[in-house]
Amino acid sequence: MVKTNPGRFFEDYHVGQVIAHAVPRTVSGGERALYHALYPARHALYSSDAFAQSCGLPNAPMDDLIAFHTVFGKTVPDISLNAIANLGYAEGRWHRPVWPGDTLRSESEVIGLKENSNGKSGVVWVRTRGLNQKGDLVLDYVRWVMVRKRDADAPAPETVVPELADSVAPGDLVVPDVLTFTGYDFTLAGEPHRWGDYAVGEIIDHVDGVTVEEAEHMLATRLWQNTAKVHFDATVREDGKRLIYGGHVISLARALSFNGLANAQMIVGLNAGAHANPCFSGDTVKAWTQVLDKAETAAPGVGALRLRLVAVKAGGLPGVLRGEDGRYLPHVLLDLDYWALIPL
Amino acid sequence: MVKTNPGRFFEDYHVGQVIAHAVPRTVSGGERALYHALYPARHALYSSDAFAQSCGLPNAPMDDLIAFHTVFGKTVPDISLNAIANLGYAEGRWHRPVWPGDTLRSESEVIGLKENSNGKSGVVWVRTRGLNQKGDLVLDYVRWVMVRKRDADAPAPETVVPELADSVAPGDLVVPDVLTFTGYDFTLAGEPHRWGDYAVGEIIDHVDGVTVEEAEHMLATRLWQNTAKVHFDATVREDGKRLIYGGHVISLARALSFNGLANAQMIVGLNAGAHANPCFSGDTVKAWTQVLDKAETAAPGVGALRLRLVAVKAGGLPGVLRGEDGRYLPHVLLDLDYWALIPL
Amino acid sequence: MVKTNPGRFFEDYHVGQVIAHAVPRTVSGGERALYHALYPARHALYSSDAFAQSCGLPNAPMDDLIAFHTVFGKTVPDISLNAIANLGYAEGRWHRPVWPGDTLRSESEVIGLKENSNGKSGVVWVRTRGLNQKGDLVLDYVRWVMVRKRDADAPAPETVVPELADSVAPGDLVVPDVLTFTGYDFTLAGEPHRWGDYAVGEIIDHVDGVTVEEAEHMLATRLWQNTAKVHFDATVREDGKRLIYGGHVISLARALSFNGLANAQMIVGLNAGAHANPCFSGDTVKAWTQVLDKAETAAPGVGALRLRLVAVKAGGLPGVLRGEDGRYLPHVLLDLDYWALIPL
Repeated sequence: MVKTNPGRFFEDYHVGQVIAHAVPRTVSGGERALYHALYPARHALYSSDAFAQSCGLPNAPMDDLIAFHTVFGKTVPDISLNAIANLGYAEGRWHRPVWPGDTLRSESEVIGLKENSNGKSGVVWVRTRGLNQKGDLVLDYVRWVMVRKRDADAPAPETVVPELADSVAPGDLVVPDVLTFTGYDFTLAGEPHRWGDYAVGEIIDHVDGVTVEEAEHMLATRLWQNTAKVHFDATVREDGKRLIYGGHVISLARALSFNGLANAQMIVGLNAGAHANPCFSGDTVKAWTQVLDKAETAAPGVGALRLRLVAVKAGGLPGVLRGEDGRYLPHVLLDLDYWALIPL
Repeated sequence: MVKTNPGRFFEDYHVGQVIAHAVPRTVSGGERALYHALYPARHALYSSDAFAQSCGLPNAPMDDLIAFHTVFGKTVPDISLNAIANLGYAEGRWHRPVWPGDTLRSESEVIGLKENSNGKSGVVWVRTRGLNQKGDLVLDYVRWVMVRKRDADAPAPETVVPELADSVAPGDLVVPDVLTFTGYDFTLAGEPHRWGDYAVGEIIDHVDGVTVEEAEHMLATRLWQNTAKVHFDATVREDGKRLIYGGHVISLARALSFNGLANAQMIVGLNAGAHANPCFSGDTVKAWTQVLDKAETAAPGVGALRLRLVAVKAGGLPGVLRGEDGRYLPHVLLDLDYWALIPL
Repeated sequence: MVKTNPGRFFEDYHVGQVIAHAVPRTVSGGERALYHALYPARHALYSSDAFAQSCGLPNAPMDDLIAFHTVFGKTVPDISLNAIANLGYAEGRWHRPVWPGDTLRSESEVIGLKENSNGKSGVVWVRTRGLNQKGDLVLDYVRWVMVRKRDADAPAPETVVPELADSVAPGDLVVPDVLTFTGYDFTLAGEPHRWGDYAVGEIIDHVDGVTVEEAEHMLATRLWQNTAKVHFDATVREDGKRLIYGGHVISLARALSFNGLANAQMIVGLNAGAHANPCFSGDTVKAWTQVLDKAETAAPGVGALRLRLVAVKAGGLPGVLRGEDGRYLPHVLLDLDYWALIPL
């Protein structure tokens, strides 16, 4: 009997299947410190207990993307070990903060299947849920990936393509019920810009850049217990390169966006996302954001911005995403559409 | 007066001598997070407080190899600063878990001495004990190293070669008295294989590989306060390479062995170990395990496996250790013989 | 409106101005573990709760340089984003330990201004204060930097050059009122040398060296939320090199100085400091110390040493700082003058 995990192939999924992912993980101040060492993260709500308390929270929560990466990492052995491509995200919502000491686990429900016309692979849609030690929902999102078939002759499943919202409706965003920005300290937060200062369509070039090293992305990817070989083993690809986990680029870009969006404190919705081109060690990552939409929330002083966060390799122009053929330009690494909470 | 530590030479040891090693160390969730960033560690008992509680423990202990590295690191300035080679390990036992907040210190007793026939060096055997802040024994093991003489003309000591067990007898393994695997959740742990599924002689290829970077092994080695120059200073060796701490390879291999041995949760015995060839930055480390023996324990639902864990550079074949001349093949990095606890 | 921070220019400062720096930061065992992974730090007071308790403290404080880097990092966006050079430090004092769980913030008062004769830049002197969550002073120091003017035609301010002490007077050093070294354990601390064993003028070569990697200095510099582009973005400098944050070299040298100064436990004064030459990835950093002065303190068993800590690239000779022209030799990286507490 082979004891190691060969991963699931396309024909191993069926609609309605719920997969409980392995290896729950307790997070602490250690994970937070590493997050702040790996990314230039400076949003005050996640950096300072005192600042978080001034916003009504008991303490600083773990960064929202720590929750995302931890939940996502657990799905890799079951969902994307044999994936050819990570195609998209939708309907992501953060339901409650993660605190130091919380234990996270993940489960995914298969909500769609579509075999490719070549008969060799297919697309699998899953809704992944992250749960804490009490069983409370922390995060959920839909993700779809292209997965190899084990046997090209296996019959195609009935095609089920889920209907997914283009974006999370503002009314569906979950704002922690104790959160308030009425006593918000803009000086300590680092910038004076509030919700009213951002206009739909506005583009912000975040200016700073980070040249990425192998040791950094591997430390990060291991921290989230993401085991995909291609990130760690230089003998896997013919070019001898290690592919950087797409989530590493998400966190880099989000952290870089502090410069211009220091008050976009809390990520509450993930509308869409594409890893447009691969990122490798030695690339210098920069970021720009376009404001896509604005909404108010029921929480005191709390507004929401819908933001397109784009990571590019140095040389890419802010605001320019696609070529004349409609495809992402080669320097575009990430195109992420999310909602963040910001003081009114 | 020279203030820096020149290290001990062969003639500085005598049988019966007890050396209290310096710099006690308090470990926390920070050390654990770093361990999980440095190695692809996923054994659930060490990753999740909730999982550890389901096994009868109050919380997730620190990884057993954090205890080993911390205890070992303290011995380096006294035992191996002038060592030519790290020759072996024997009779290692973990006596109690290390918890976040514990403070570890080490002491070593010299139990054997044998001058080499060249008169320039000799072998020193020590039994090292790791103690927590209460003075309770956490870990002990025998290690022997070849150490330079300061003065080739110094007289040889009486030869004392300790009698060491080939392996720790199953009845001598210490199982935490609260540990139970009767309610063990194989899904959360990541694999269905239990004690009865492993056969003596069986070989498991752990499949995954990690290409090692300088920054990673130096972060790890410093974390354990291991100060041997050769790991950090590229000007020490003529080839300009930094030798990777052998314990880094142990932790890499053990973490890689999750894939196929996810339920071999707790390390309780170290029977033997050889660092067969040096490891350097850029090497891709893979691992395989052979099951050497099996035993039951008195704890509910808890069995023990004696495992040979072999780390190799990419290209090495699982199961193949030595050439026709009986020597380790050049791609073999580590040959480690240990006991782990696994659900019956 | 440009949303990103362009930094302050010379004409944006005026004497008496107080700048509250952004992004308070809560530190934990995570930051400590990273500090010990990034630097070969082994001073027992900061490594072990039990050892700290034997010196009268409730627990091991965070390393004094964690306090320094955290406080310093917050000033970068306001003080040194457009700096041409970091010119000096003076009158630095640590006023109380930082404990895990403390939240640090920083503020700086402009205490001097002097436009350069070229009219394109000027020198700004600030006194920076680090405060904890109770508003208690943790650390203060004077620093001066050369800053570009935005507009060369802007009028020069009145020249104010602050009078700064050559060194902190021993009587002005703040010793934690519970600290005692009367029960100090020299064995656990790692060396037998006490205050009386050090002579003014004595030079200690710390022997060990560390070859620095890009990933390491970037992890460190991000951990302190220091955002200066030149440390992270390889496209900024024409030579494609990333300049290593000077504070990284301070911590490396201080940690290396354990070997010979293991009992110089607590940093309490910063008299002066110069980053003599830039440090880059691949450099092997070594260190030596000269004893400049000695003083007793009112605390039981506690003496103070004034130490010149010099970091050099491999090849530099201990004790040799400057060439015949009076300038720092090219291999000198750091010349730091500080006070540390050591058992009498």
